[in-house]
Amino acid sequence: MKIGIVSRTDREDALELNRSIIKYLLENKVEVEIDTSLAEKLSEYEEYTCDITQMTSDFVICVGGDGTVLKAQHVLSPKKIPILSVNMGTVGFLTEVEPEDIFECLDALLSYDFFIEERLQLDVLCDDEWITVLNELVIMNSQPGKMLDLTINVDEEIVDNVRADGLIISTPSGSTAYAMSAGGPIVDPRVDAAVIIPICPFKLNTRPKIVPADSKISVKFTKEDKKGLAVLDGVNNKEYGYMDELKLRKSEDVAYFVRFRKNFYDSVNKKLTIG
Amino acid sequence: MKIGIVSRTDREDALELNRSIIKYLLENKVEVEIDTSLAEKLSEYEEYTCDITQMTSDFVICVGGDGTVLKAQHVLSPKKIPILSVNMGTVGFLTEVEPEDIFECLDALLSYDFFIEERLQLDVLCDDEWITVLNELVIMNSQPGKMLDLTINVDEEIVDNVRADGLIISTPSGSTAYAMSAGGPIVDPRVDAAVIIPICPFKLNTRPKIVPADSKISVKFTKEDKKGLAVLDGVNNKEYGYMDELKLRKSEDVAYFVRFRKNFYDSVNKKLTIG
Amino acid sequence: MKIGIVSRTDREDALELNRSIIKYLLENKVEVEIDTSLAEKLSEYEEYTCDITQMTSDFVICVGGDGTVLKAQHVLSPKKIPILSVNMGTVGFLTEVEPEDIFECLDALLSYDFFIEERLQLDVLCDDEWITVLNELVIMNSQPGKMLDLTINVDEEIVDNVRADGLIISTPSGSTAYAMSAGGPIVDPRVDAAVIIPICPFKLNTRPKIVPADSKISVKFTKEDKKGLAVLDGVNNKEYGYMDELKLRKSEDVAYFVRFRKNFYDSVNKKLTIG
Amino acid sequence: MKIGIVSRTDREDALELNRSIIKYLLENKVEVEIDTSLAEKLSEYEEYTCDITQMTSDFVICVGGDGTVLKAQHVLSPKKIPILSVNMGTVGFLTEVEPEDIFECLDALLSYDFFIEERLQLDVLCDDEWITVLNELVIMNSQPGKMLDLTINVDEEIVDNVRADGLIISTPSGSTAYAMSAGGPIVDPRVDAAVIIPICPFKLNTRPKIVPADSKISVKFTKEDKKGLAVLDGVNNKEYGYMDELKLRKSEDVAYFVRFRKNFYDSVNKKLTIG
Repeated sequence: MKIGIVSRTDREDALELNRSIIKYLLENKVEVEIDTSLAEKLSEYEEYTCDITQMTSDFVICVGGDGTVLKAQHVLSPKKIPILSVNMGTVGFLTEVEPEDIFECLDALLSYDFFIEERLQLDVLCDDEWITVLNELVIMNSQPGKMLDLTINVDEEIVDNVRADGLIISTPSGSTAYAMSAGGPIVDPRVDAAVIIPICPFKLNTRPKIVPADSKISVKFTKEDKKGLAVLDGVNNKEYGYMDELKLRKSEDVAYFVRFRKNFYDSVNKKLTIG
Repeated sequence: MKIGIVSRTDREDALELNRSIIKYLLENKVEVEIDTSLAEKLSEYEEYTCDITQMTSDFVICVGGDGTVLKAQHVLSPKKIPILSVNMGTVGFLTEVEPEDIFECLDALLSYDFFIEERLQLDVLCDDEWITVLNELVIMNSQPGKMLDLTINVDEEIVDNVRADGLIISTPSGSTAYAMSAGGPIVDPRVDAAVIIPICPFKLNTRPKIVPADSKISVKFTKEDKKGLAVLDGVNNKEYGYMDELKLRKSEDVAYFVRFRKNFYDSVNKKLTIG
Repeated sequence: MKIGIVSRTDREDALELNRSIIKYLLENKVEVEIDTSLAEKLSEYEEYTCDITQMTSDFVICVGGDGTVLKAQHVLSPKKIPILSVNMGTVGFLTEVEPEDIFECLDALLSYDFFIEERLQLDVLCDDEWITVLNELVIMNSQPGKMLDLTINVDEEIVDNVRADGLIISTPSGSTAYAMSAGGPIVDPRVDAAVIIPICPFKLNTRPKIVPADSKISVKFTKEDKKGLAVLDGVNNKEYGYMDELKLRKSEDVAYFVRFRKNFYDSVNKKLTIG
Repeated sequence: MKIGIVSRTDREDALELNRSIIKYLLENKVEVEIDTSLAEKLSEYEEYTCDITQMTSDFVICVGGDGTVLKAQHVLSPKKIPILSVNMGTVGFLTEVEPEDIFECLDALLSYDFFIEERLQLDVLCDDEWITVLNELVIMNSQPGKMLDLTINVDEEIVDNVRADGLIISTPSGSTAYAMSAGGPIVDPRVDAAVIIPICPFKLNTRPKIVPADSKISVKFTKEDKKGLAVLDGVNNKEYGYMDELKLRKSEDVAYFVRFRKNFYDSVNKKLTIG
């Protein structure tokens, strides 16, 4: 078995945890690949350096919060490498394991006592490039207080004309992230759907909409002088303006996560209560 | 072609419209079957009487609001007979045609210029009988102000323990009915999912949940002395109490509707604005 | 100093707590009056029996949840007797003291180290009688699923025509009770206002409304065949129907509560997190 | 009688309406003062130029939307000059008269057939200057997707610690503006209160809060590296960051509006339906 390791590197406790994990893996005769930015901080394991983009592991352990997972998984999902994520962040809806349980979970991993959960993703056509998101596309007004005017199409039918601060188009995974703060429902990861939800809409009768994941969704900017920033899985893309159109489709790449228990709701409810 | 006719019979304008429709159909050499309760009001067409339960038509025209459609379709969906519904009610999310457009639509129907939309249904196990709903199961507290304590399971995982005035489990069709008043999202009829949404929940962090339509959903009454009434598609079923459990599954019967245009969102938005 | 005692009597731990409180008060030379229903359960203190309606105490200690407090305070507020409430219920937004802190608080009470908080009340004209509520008037549809049609007036202006399952008109005190489950805001008890909020409204653009407490509010039933039950502070009043009108005004009686700390928000936030 | 005139100047129809109004006033022997930016566009009336800051009129007619009214009224409320606003904007919650009704209203104005409505304002301490707002203070995250951490105090009690995209503190006037898009209630202008409401809060159990207008409200930035932009009545103020604190108090200046009918709710409901 070969296992890659990716991590946030700005916290000492995260580095310490990585050292323990690597030690454990090597002792258990597992081959390891350590992502460049992490390996730089762990000089004793320099020989195992392998940039995440070059990894050929069976699994990748990812230490951090949802941000770290999202970043890693953009590289790993096209390679079909499953992620085992350890929560070392402020938000951990995507993470599976708390730090104190990691070794028990590694035992299970090495014994093949786990299952792989697939999560659907969306492709967003920004300019001429399709970018894949696991959580969501957010379109935000660039000037606070200046509402955007957007027309949303699904399979060539106009779904809504919204005036709002912004708009979120989210996967089921993203339904427990930003979409939830904007008032969206929680979508079971097995439902093959996307959530469309405006942020602070002017019209009071606007409601979140749940559409088939494989529908063709598009968002058009319909008002002159209004600009919006596209943010994909938390990463700023670029500003769009009058007559620009963003298109979305279901991605052919799914994200793969190592799971040990079927506990989606338990996990969401716990995080909601803490939050 | 043979066409059945079902209608509300408490409004003179509805009866008048039925007369025109029947006249049109007969003139166009269409065989007709007229549901008993309607035929009784239209003595001139008595000879065409056929109870809805006995109909063998290719289509059934249904004149009324959502209540009339729901009632008719419980009989017709197991027989796979599509409904063409004409809106003569206060709420018409399920209806397709406004009275003034009916003859244009009948022309289209006779020319086979239409398509059939399938809508998923849920089966609810009440006592030992599976009852099919097109819109929703509602569980309401029987005594106003006394909250119910319910535990909701989906595929053997506890989704939520709710204290609330009630609970709605809705199909996509039902998402624009009562579930919407309770704060739920609008679900595209093509999405294969059910909506679970509490009514006036005590916990403020409760959110609507979208789960796979083919999951096994169950709701258990977990508090002594609290009773709730189950209402299926608007029809009172019976009271349930401590330790009772209601189970739901995706129905094998789908509902069939005659449609002329793909305009789900346009239609919903219009009704939301009027409402 | 003379102190009255009122309590729920269906829980052994509540009775035990009452015994300790009475013992403490008598040892501290405080005169006591024990409400009839409680005294019947505490035979050793039978001599102190005094029905709550006859009490002339300086304060009344009330052991129970919000239901117990509401009931006691309907008798006590016209007599201007402040309540010190000890939380022994499932909901305790109105209660001040947890059981484990009661003796510390009694020490403070006997040392006059406290302040009196006044809470505004509303009078509801039901038939020909004005009934005072500390929390709210709820109007509920009597048949589940049959919406009410209500017209709401404030100072002779129509505020809204609502179709809904029900309607709540709440004081600031009630804003953390049922009104909150229906989606209402939290109103600081010092704000001189009432909250009007429909339950599951059909129109999606309906919003809670905050109106002056001393405005003349009225609610009229505008649809034949629809009946609604009026519930005042959790107590069923009677059914109203077509053309009936319920009127509200600010009450001249305020409710008085013994408080030891200014911690309204801390207390609400704690209860929201637990809930 | 002396009447000032202020207007948006970017629309030809607005200029045309101003010409008619001025003509009407002069014919009716009313003295007029025309704000500089408007007078520059109406060369035939150049002689009546008077900058809004210098006006000494009995009333000021304001032609435009809510933005124009807000701007004018910041100058006029300290001088206690009432505004008669004519709606020529996309949003007109603050405006009183539609263009087609203006001359009927001017007749009423000249006959003293009107009343003055007072609207409370809040002062916001930004750096060392108190700035008055009629609608609201908005604090927005400067980087999209990066939530702010804010601690809100009211009268020295912590009301909430919020992680959110932003925060709105609104007057009753502002309750029908941005606060409404964020999910807030509609507050009757006669209620002496402020609304505190987070924008897209992370915690799901957060609710809008209604606090006394004359309470001391403060908002503190509690997280390093997070910056927020303060926007006062739609005008960008400046960025604030870690440990900065914004304070609010009830303003001594109220805004004065000329009104012809008591129709706050009718007006709000109409605008909600159109919206």
